[in-house]
Amino acid sequence: MIPKHLQDLVDALRILPSVGEKSAFRMALYLLEQENNAPLRLANALINAKANVMRCEVCNALCEERRADSKNICQICSSLDRDNSVICVVERPSDMLAIEKNNRFNGVYHVLGGLISPIAGITPDKLSLNLLKKRVEEGEVKEIIIALGFTGEAETTIFYIQKILSGFPLTISKLAQGLSSGLEIIHADKNTLNQAIDDRKIISRSI
Amino acid sequence: MIPKHLQDLVDALRILPSVGEKSAFRMALYLLEQENNAPLRLANALINAKANVMRCEVCNALCEERRADSKNICQICSSLDRDNSVICVVERPSDMLAIEKNNRFNGVYHVLGGLISPIAGITPDKLSLNLLKKRVEEGEVKEIIIALGFTGEAETTIFYIQKILSGFPLTISKLAQGLSSGLEIIHADKNTLNQAIDDRKIISRSI
Repeated sequence: MIPKHLQDLVDALRILPSVGEKSAFRMALYLLEQENNAPLRLANALINAKANVMRCEVCNALCEERRADSKNICQICSSLDRDNSVICVVERPSDMLAIEKNNRFNGVYHVLGGLISPIAGITPDKLSLNLLKKRVEEGEVKEIIIALGFTGEAETTIFYIQKILSGFPLTISKLAQGLSSGLEIIHADKNTLNQAIDDRKIISRSI
Repeated sequence: MIPKHLQDLVDALRILPSVGEKSAFRMALYLLEQENNAPLRLANALINAKANVMRCEVCNALCEERRADSKNICQICSSLDRDNSVICVVERPSDMLAIEKNNRFNGVYHVLGGLISPIAGITPDKLSLNLLKKRVEEGEVKEIIIALGFTGEAETTIFYIQKILSGFPLTISKLAQGLSSGLEIIHADKNTLNQAIDDRKIISRSI
């Protein structure tokens, strides 16, 4: 009954987060009903993003600059205006963009790519924790600000970061508990987020 | 800050119904974080659906069969098992699929492609009403069942269909309005309840 290529499109749309069968069907019909080239524009955007958006080799954020030395380094890590001695550790690129939007933090970032969650099978080796350790080993880092929200997984991850970085002469802080418990970084309002950065709590100091 | 191709993807995803800036961003990041080929699979599904899914020349439903005579006719309109004398008029292809899923109606369909709404600029000529009139003029149709829901736009559209089909020897009906199956009286809205009382069905009469 349903044309095969329509069903294929519905199935492909279902992989999107929080899109079920009905929403996917509505989206597919909507796209096909457009007079203009909306479906092809979306198709091209997907192909281009997949081909061009990469991970920064330093901080694991999304980037698309391939530098002259053919390394993938993001704009922030490449910038001479940013303070490389302060690294803000976030879960996802979207958290980094939320902080960056406030135009206040002048350090650099480190994107973990998730939080440690043994139940969900996310062990430390699945995250960019070794890359973080490597950055600290290179000696320039003075402070690590952990911006991870306040969930059980975040606490586990913070504890693990403290463990692998113990012994290095640096300050480790985490965001002030100005955020409501359970709230994700991306949903925090600007003031709450700024306050949380200002009130970050030092959890270990060895210099 | 945000890689250009990522922003392009976010913009392209925003054309989807009920997808705002934040959802689009979340979807884009999710797609790019997939290890597998999810973004390319979606891109291909879009390209294939756009190229292969067409409108049935008889009923305006979605179809993808191009017959030997190079006409685009959907499976239902091509079928010899369906009763061509009863046409169920619906707004969108999804309505038709909802009725079809029940495996009960054995007539054929007619997809209007929308409802008359002067405020939204949807005039009768934007819908497949002429195609419907043409089907009736061909003489085989005995009943038109209008399955359009109960909104102001639906009422306007029903009135217009009645007008253009007046003079033809056929029955025009619309779906019964009343309580939904499983609904308790206390949860029915005012209009539904009033309509259900007005259209009450006599189940026994002894006077």
